[in-house]
Amino acid sequence: MPNPTAAMLVIGDEILSGRTRDANMYHLASQLTEQGIDLKEVRVISDDRESIVHATRALSAAYTHVFTSGGIGPTHDDITADCIAAAFGVSIGVRADARAILQAHYAANGQVLNEARLRMARIPDGAQLIDNPVSKAPGFTLQNVHVMAGVPSIFQAMVASVLPSLTGGKPLLSVTYRVDRGEGDIATPLGLLAKTFPELSIGCYPFQKDGLFGANIVFRGTDETQLQKALAALQVEFPQ
Amino acid sequence: MPNPTAAMLVIGDEILSGRTRDANMYHLASQLTEQGIDLKEVRVISDDRESIVHATRALSAAYTHVFTSGGIGPTHDDITADCIAAAFGVSIGVRADARAILQAHYAANGQVLNEARLRMARIPDGAQLIDNPVSKAPGFTLQNVHVMAGVPSIFQAMVASVLPSLTGGKPLLSVTYRVDRGEGDIATPLGLLAKTFPELSIGCYPFQKDGLFGANIVFRGTDETQLQKALAALQVEFPQ
Repeated sequence: MPNPTAAMLVIGDEILSGRTRDANMYHLASQLTEQGIDLKEVRVISDDRESIVHATRALSAAYTHVFTSGGIGPTHDDITADCIAAAFGVSIGVRADARAILQAHYAANGQVLNEARLRMARIPDGAQLIDNPVSKAPGFTLQNVHVMAGVPSIFQAMVASVLPSLTGGKPLLSVTYRVDRGEGDIATPLGLLAKTFPELSIGCYPFQKDGLFGANIVFRGTDETQLQKALAALQVEFPQ
Repeated sequence: MPNPTAAMLVIGDEILSGRTRDANMYHLASQLTEQGIDLKEVRVISDDRESIVHATRALSAAYTHVFTSGGIGPTHDDITADCIAAAFGVSIGVRADARAILQAHYAANGQVLNEARLRMARIPDGAQLIDNPVSKAPGFTLQNVHVMAGVPSIFQAMVASVLPSLTGGKPLLSVTYRVDRGEGDIATPLGLLAKTFPELSIGCYPFQKDGLFGANIVFRGTDETQLQKALAALQVEFPQ
């Protein structure tokens, strides 16, 4: 059976303007690979209602899971929750259990649960909450869309909350072998290897260091035996 | 007149598997912002023919410019040039000027222009070459799609080659102001400021450091006077 698939939707003007370097894509990609869920696509879009609704519908229809990051805080530009509700045509409002979590948190910190903070208890109808051990305001799962915060420490905590509940496939394994030759010398034997091992994905990542050319060859697949066979064949071709 | 728009298409299994952390998105985003071209969307997809063709068509139709990174080397998984040609329904083959560039480069380095390396001279009909001062193998522009390498040093050199030829708009300016208060305390006054300065985009980026809450408030816009007025209003609201 093929592995479940996933897409990620990164929501945030700060990424597109180059102000902030995204850290969540890299984190989620490696977590999903470990779990045997194949990340097939990432989209980064701005804090714009129409863009979020459109992308959510397209990705939700195309993949087993969608993971979003960004836009669920208390400020005027945090519109993700409303857009996800709109994408699925469901209502959204302050939910009692989410409100209680925030109430307890702010009371413990001597802060007021004001109107702005209460926005973070707005949850689309039919969603399940995603636990946020860092700053309490929850994420949520609606159908196959998992909605999480953009702040990296909170995003990572939410990923840890939601991933164990998802059915994974076989974890993607990889082996890497360094060849100190130009990519143009490696390409032909590598193409033949790709035909010999059709179940494996074979990548060639060139580098240039101190004037020398080389490349890291990466075999990826779910079958350890196949990986080791391909590695052995490559070692015969390019002994170290 | 509104600024030209852009999308980026990152092509590479190594990003989606979490093996490599993308560096090109962050670089391109800040370069485009300086040039007054609004980056509206980024998509990361795998080295898959159908995905590349589909995304190229969709983004090319929706934005003024599309910038791609990845998949133009000599190995079997480098299929970007063929997919771009297919997306626009044009032929592709080894082109004399691209071949001459490679020939001179490999001759100077005492290397052979073998069949694999010659793949890098395959250019779709009607494209203009993009100069690659780092490793010579050129990128190309076909219609509104600029096709560049994925290796960061080469990608950056190609961006520097192609950007000066594009018409930009007003550069996006920004000012940042740090407020040492929880985001929930900032949200309401910030929402009012957003209404007072509708031409500005206002972002609130919370942080937590040594147990203290704070947020960086970023105003973005093309009018310096408006930015300074908004900053002054924020300073009155939250004096330091």
